[in-house]
Amino acid sequence: MSEAPRRGPASDATPPKPPIRDSLVAAAFQLFLEHGYEQTTVDDIVTLAGVGRRSFFRYFPSKEDVVFPDHERCLADMTEFLSSGTDEDDPVERVCDAARLVLRMYAENPTFSVQRYRLTRKVPGLRAYELSVVWRYERALAEYLRVRFAGRRDGTLHADVIAAAVVAAHNNGLRSWLRSDGQGDAAAAVDHALGHVRDTFGAKGAGIAAPAQEEPEDVVVVISKRGTPMWRVVREIESTLRQD
Amino acid sequence: MSEAPRRGPASDATPPKPPIRDSLVAAAFQLFLEHGYEQTTVDDIVTLAGVGRRSFFRYFPSKEDVVFPDHERCLADMTEFLSSGTDEDDPVERVCDAARLVLRMYAENPTFSVQRYRLTRKVPGLRAYELSVVWRYERALAEYLRVRFAGRRDGTLHADVIAAAVVAAHNNGLRSWLRSDGQGDAAAAVDHALGHVRDTFGAKGAGIAAPAQEEPEDVVVVISKRGTPMWRVVREIESTLRQD
Repeated sequence: MSEAPRRGPASDATPPKPPIRDSLVAAAFQLFLEHGYEQTTVDDIVTLAGVGRRSFFRYFPSKEDVVFPDHERCLADMTEFLSSGTDEDDPVERVCDAARLVLRMYAENPTFSVQRYRLTRKVPGLRAYELSVVWRYERALAEYLRVRFAGRRDGTLHADVIAAAVVAAHNNGLRSWLRSDGQGDAAAAVDHALGHVRDTFGAKGAGIAAPAQEEPEDVVVVISKRGTPMWRVVREIESTLRQD
Repeated sequence: MSEAPRRGPASDATPPKPPIRDSLVAAAFQLFLEHGYEQTTVDDIVTLAGVGRRSFFRYFPSKEDVVFPDHERCLADMTEFLSSGTDEDDPVERVCDAARLVLRMYAENPTFSVQRYRLTRKVPGLRAYELSVVWRYERALAEYLRVRFAGRRDGTLHADVIAAAVVAAHNNGLRSWLRSDGQGDAAAAVDHALGHVRDTFGAKGAGIAAPAQEEPEDVVVVISKRGTPMWRVVREIESTLRQD
């Protein structure tokens, strides 16, 4: 990537931040919270930030974009991360790690993330914007998986389903953290949710265990009641593994 | 539901259709195809359809809505279908069947569906609209599953992940049919994709098989190489079942 990562407005750690961009985001959120999103104009924002209209549009194509100032960077980071992997990487693990980049962006600045979450729930246009961003993350994951599964039957189907499951799990963990007003451990919530996906779709973690005759390292025996739903079989295999 | 189902413009089967609504859809698509979506105004549409502006807005809140005239009915059908189920229904089977209602809407009118698919890919605003519709389907499925999984650990997580997987699989099958210009068997494509999800997340189909000592009806033994990815274990169990 050609430029230093940009952070949210109130992040007080790490690299130097472009002051105009950050002050636009801070001014926008102050006005959105005080007067509402719809009632705030770009003119209001630039007046409070003390810059001209052209400065605003240099950083943000529209008023909606100032609500999500870090998604473009995060999408670029995700694409870079996925493309820098090797064939040795477990594909499901890799997309779970890619999803964690998004979580990190939210967790960098809990106050801002919680404010935005509340705003997004109230304004349908922002909700639509967010859905299109989520869709782009999902496509990035699916495209990576499609390449990794290129050789197998139903590769694109498997890729699309896993990408959707990873995004849904990530968002489930993220939302429960946002609903707790950013209290608690965001990473733990998302790790737990992604673990669920990893366990369902395989990956190293689901390596399996149990006694066998000849090569104890190589074989596992699972005994299950007929009619057991597949998710329960999967869970059984995993809990066997954990006892190992 | 209080009114007869409404169909797409060129559907030549089944119940009486409200003529004004259908002629608005037909006029809109004729103009979108001839002049482009952005270049067509609501005034152009009502002029061609021979009705007043107020008639348009009685049926469609905006120009975008005329592109997707049947989603509201389909969402209502889906909600009705899900809420009319019983506790005996397998939850994963039920959401797969609910997703098939969406497919049926597309398959009712292949020409219209293919035209819309092409239009939606070209116009970002329509793509965003479609994403918000897809999200509402996904929420309907997830809410049903959350109730069904209410008693279990990670019930909402499991519900969200399965809903996302079902939607992704449905859309994978649907898109491959749309890309083939509506040739081939839409239902077969989507059934295949949904079968993939059903196999992953359990349901009756994944009942399991194999020899056992005491109660052959009740127990299955699966032997698998250590390190086998979970999806492969699942597939193994299923193929064992099929040989049964």
